[in-house]
This record gives sequence, C-alpha cells and structure tokens, in this order.
Amino acid sequence: MRIDKVYNHDAMPNNGLITNSMLPQFKIDTKFDISSYLAERKALIEKALDNSIRIVYPENIYEAMRYSLLAGGKRLRPILCLASCELSGGTIEIAIPTACALEMIHTMSLIHDDLPAMDNDDYRRGKWTNHKVYGESIAILAGDALLSYAFEFVATQTKNVLPQQILQVIASLGRAVGAAGLVGGQVVDLASEGMSDVSEETLRFIHTHKTGSLLEACVISGAILASASQANLQRFSRYAQNIGLAFQIVDDILDITATTEELGKTAGKDIEAKKATYPGILGMEKSRIQAQRLLDNAKAELEVFGEKALPLMALADFIINRSN
Amino acid sequence: MRIDKVYNHDAMPNNGLITNSMLPQFKIDTKFDISSYLAERKALIEKALDNSIRIVYPENIYEAMRYSLLAGGKRLRPILCLASCELSGGTIEIAIPTACALEMIHTMSLIHDDLPAMDNDDYRRGKWTNHKVYGESIAILAGDALLSYAFEFVATQTKNVLPQQILQVIASLGRAVGAAGLVGGQVVDLASEGMSDVSEETLRFIHTHKTGSLLEACVISGAILASASQANLQRFSRYAQNIGLAFQIVDDILDITATTEELGKTAGKDIEAKKATYPGILGMEKSRIQAQRLLDNAKAELEVFGEKALPLMALADFIINRSN
Repeated sequence: MRIDKVYNHDAMPNNGLITNSMLPQFKIDTKFDISSYLAERKALIEKALDNSIRIVYPENIYEAMRYSLLAGGKRLRPILCLASCELSGGTIEIAIPTACALEMIHTMSLIHDDLPAMDNDDYRRGKWTNHKVYGESIAILAGDALLSYAFEFVATQTKNVLPQQILQVIASLGRAVGAAGLVGGQVVDLASEGMSDVSEETLRFIHTHKTGSLLEACVISGAILASASQANLQRFSRYAQNIGLAFQIVDDILDITATTEELGKTAGKDIEAKKATYPGILGMEKSRIQAQRLLDNAKAELEVFGEKALPLMALADFIINRSN
Repeated sequence: MRIDKVYNHDAMPNNGLITNSMLPQFKIDTKFDISSYLAERKALIEKALDNSIRIVYPENIYEAMRYSLLAGGKRLRPILCLASCELSGGTIEIAIPTACALEMIHTMSLIHDDLPAMDNDDYRRGKWTNHKVYGESIAILAGDALLSYAFEFVATQTKNVLPQQILQVIASLGRAVGAAGLVGGQVVDLASEGMSDVSEETLRFIHTHKTGSLLEACVISGAILASASQANLQRFSRYAQNIGLAFQIVDDILDITATTEELGKTAGKDIEAKKATYPGILGMEKSRIQAQRLLDNAKAELEVFGEKALPLMALADFIINRSN
C-alpha cells in the first residue's frame, strides 16, 4: 500500500476557506476489496449474534431482543472492533463477544431512541420499530435486557484474554453508552430540538457523544483485547473520533438527500423535527468538505501501521461515501 | 448466639396444611441491634452513592440520575451485599463499589417501572417519580445511564479484588437484571396484569425474577468479592431466593394493608391494576404463613456460619417484619 498525502491541512492558506479543489486526497494503491470484506465480516457477526440469544420463557422478551438485534444493518460497529483487534495483533475469536456486545448496545440505543417519548419513529432498518411490533413496555425492557446482557456477554464469553483487559473493555463500553457518552449526546440532542440557534459547538458535542463515543469504544475495545500500546490506543481513539463525527455529518446529509427507502428509516426526519444538523448550520457543501477532512485526519492516524491498516482505512472511506 | 429450630418443615404433618400455631419459630438469643446497624450502613451507602455521580454538562441527565438514586429508600440491596462480603471474610471497602452498583441497577428498574408505558406511577419513595419531574425521555435515558454506569463503576472502582472475581460479579449483575432475571419477571408481571387466572407458579416466577434475582445478586456478589467457596455461594443463593420471595409477598401484603403515606408510593395499586398477588391467590393469612416459612428457610441456610451470620439473619427478619 502506498499513501500519498497531497494536501496538508495544518498549513492551510486562504484564511481557512476550503474549496473542493483543495480537498485532501488519499490515493490508496491497493486492491483491497471492501465489499467482500464487509460481506464476509457481516455474515460472521450475524451468525454470532444469532447464536447469542436463545428464546426461552418468557418468549416475547427474547423475541423482541432478537427482532431488533437481527434486523440487519451494516454491522459497522462490530466490524470496527474486529478490525482494530486484528490490526493490533489479536484474533477475531478473542474480539467476537465484545463485537456482539457493541451491536447489542447499539441496538438498545436504537430501540430506546425510536420510542414515542423520544424520536417517535415507526421505521428502522426498513422494518417496524420495536415498540410498533411489541409495544412500548416490552421495547423499553428489551433495550434494558440487551444493555445488561452486553456486559454479561463480554464478562462470560471472552476467552484467552487477561481478566484485567476484559475489565478495561467493560469500563470502556460502560463509559461509551452512559451519561458521559451516548446518553449525554442524546440528552443534548433532545434539548436542542426545535431550537433555531444551536451552535456548531453544541452540534459537535451531540455527534461526538451520540455517535462518536460508541464508535470509539468499538475501535478501542478491539485494541485493548489485543494488548495494544497506550500510544496506539490514542491513535485508534483519534481515528474513531474523526470517523464518528464524519459518520454523523454524512447521516445528516443523507437525511436530506436520500429517500426513506434508501435509508431504511424515515428520511427528512431532522427537518421535520427541526433538528440541528451540519447541513443546516454549515450548508451542504461545507458539510461535505468537513466530512472529507475528518476522513483525511482519521486515515492519517493509521499511516504508521502500513498495509495492516487497510481494512480500517477502507472502513473509514466506506463510512463517508455510503449512500444509506 | 443460640438458634433453636422449634419446628421442622421437612417433616410436615397434616397434609401440608399450616396453621399459625405450627409456624416455625427462631429464638435468637442476642442483643444484635438491627436498627443501629441499618442506620449506620445506610449512612455509609448514602455517602458513597452521593460521591458516585458528579454533575457535569449536560447537567439535567446527571441531576435526574441523582434525583432517583439519592431519593432515600432502605438501601437493603447494598446492605445485603456488604453483609455477605463481611460474613465471607471480606471488607466493606472491597464491596462498596458493587453495593453502589446494585443500588444504581435497582434505581434504574424503579425509574423504568414507573414510566407511563409500564406501571405509570406518580410517586416513589414519597417523591414524584423521575418522569414526572424530568419528563419521559430523560427518565428513560437516566435509567439507561444508571444501568451502564453500574457496570462501569464495578469495573473501575473495585480495588484489592482479583480481576477474575470482579468479572464474576459483573456477570452476576448482568444476569440478575436482564431477561433471565429482573426484566423477565417484569415481562411476565405485565403480561399477567388484569388476568384473573394467574397461577401460583406464574406468580412465583414473577417474584423470584422481578425481585429475587437482584437480591440474590446482592448477596452472591458480596460473597464472590470475598472469595467465598462454591458451597457457601450456594447457601447464600438459597438464603437470597427465600428472602427475595418473602420480600415480595410482604410487598403484596403491604400494598393492601399499608397507606400511601407509609409506603412512600401509591398504595392499593395492585388491586387497581388487577395484578396477581399472593394475598389474591392464597389469601392474606396463608400469604403471611408462606412469608414466615420462607424466612425460616432463609435463616436455616446461614446456621452454619454461627454468630457471624447475625446481620444477615437480622436483615431477613427485618425484610419480613417491615411495615413499608
């Protein structure tokens, strides 16, 4: 792999104004096949998730958990966890329980976000949302059960890793989903709804917490399981923060440009709910440039790993260039 | 301490019919002062809980978490955890983070149970319920944040315990609150609401899961932290299962006999919601006998520990004889 950094942001001319022609360009000289990679990893994760929850009495709670957990989706979070573990010298086997737990946590956040008291959404991943199928009370409980099971699953299913490292992973997951992470982002998001004067700083807080925290936990936890050095954990952390924010900017853009069918969830919800978005604050073009710039920064963090970083590089590209 | 078992259930005459005069009687020849013990332990736990959550931005989620976590209550769960740890040769210090986590989990379950989509209750511990003060969305998120923080707290705050044992505690907490525990019990409870033909077996499932699982985790986790033997863990487990069920039978009885003021939560809710209860199925007198019998069994499990078991014995008595 050869990576040429054509443009350096740190010495930016033109008073910080960025034009399209000035965009950072990475030329990746490789035949890495991201589509096959994603398909193969997704299949692996689907199988592990399918095996993670058995239906026993009382059946409807397990069915509700499985309904949302196995509703498809790109499985980016578990894929990121496996990729950072492998890049750090670990195996898929040691990371798969944590990868599943990350998807359980993500699913919990979607189930609770979709509730009538929250975003009140009827569709998710092209299907009815959990509470539309099972009712609100079961949806709340299915989220609670997935969240607690995620921690139990990591604690009981992780093999061939030092207990101390498993504890670090659990701490990192807990922090990512709690008030200092995902929940905190959601709180500010809800509080900002309908406000016309949301600052870019607030929007950044929302996104880095609501989306970024868990993505960071994905990459960090995989690396912890593989005994990555502190310096590398920090690289992964910055990589994840950049793609986390880029991911959400792209999400904001897609909410405007994509159809409900393409998204598998209701499009145009942000405008309807008068939500603050990057396109709303910066405009569409600057938002695209910002996302591209974050992608640039994310990939720069991984240059030190050489070819081994190809999957995480390609994942970053995929996240920014996705159409749903 | 001298414990005389006056009546043995295992050789029960009279075709299993129990009369008041046949009730098991433990005569505890001791001056153990449960009131002082509870007050001292409660103060210790309140302080630790108060220190466990700092208010930072976004303030309202931390305030909502603290509002319910510090709303009083008997703190029986953390007290049970500390007591079983000490009985097993451990210190308060090694168990206090887990004790706090257990109260966080319990509080989460109360916040979510009280939601309009669930039990729709306005009062809890003599105060407005969380969603009445902060709104439904924040109440859902405060529960989520408390649940995830509980696991993070155990993982990061437990000192002088082998990591492997901390993992066992985390697994035990996860199992206790998830679909195989508290959530499963709540699901069957909700499904049974308004049904006139709930069996004693179903009611037992509800109570052993909705209440018993977490009480069991309290006692077990304290013992795990102190490296208790498998045999003793099983003793604690049976002790907890018995007092868990007794606790809930007493709760059912109090819902009928106590006032809203005494309970600090709305009295008579079970009848209003047509909930299956022990008094409803067995009648008041047999329910009282059943509770007493479970208390008997619980205490019998601890006889082997001699005087060291006094706090857990007294706690069992307290749970059955409480008036709120």
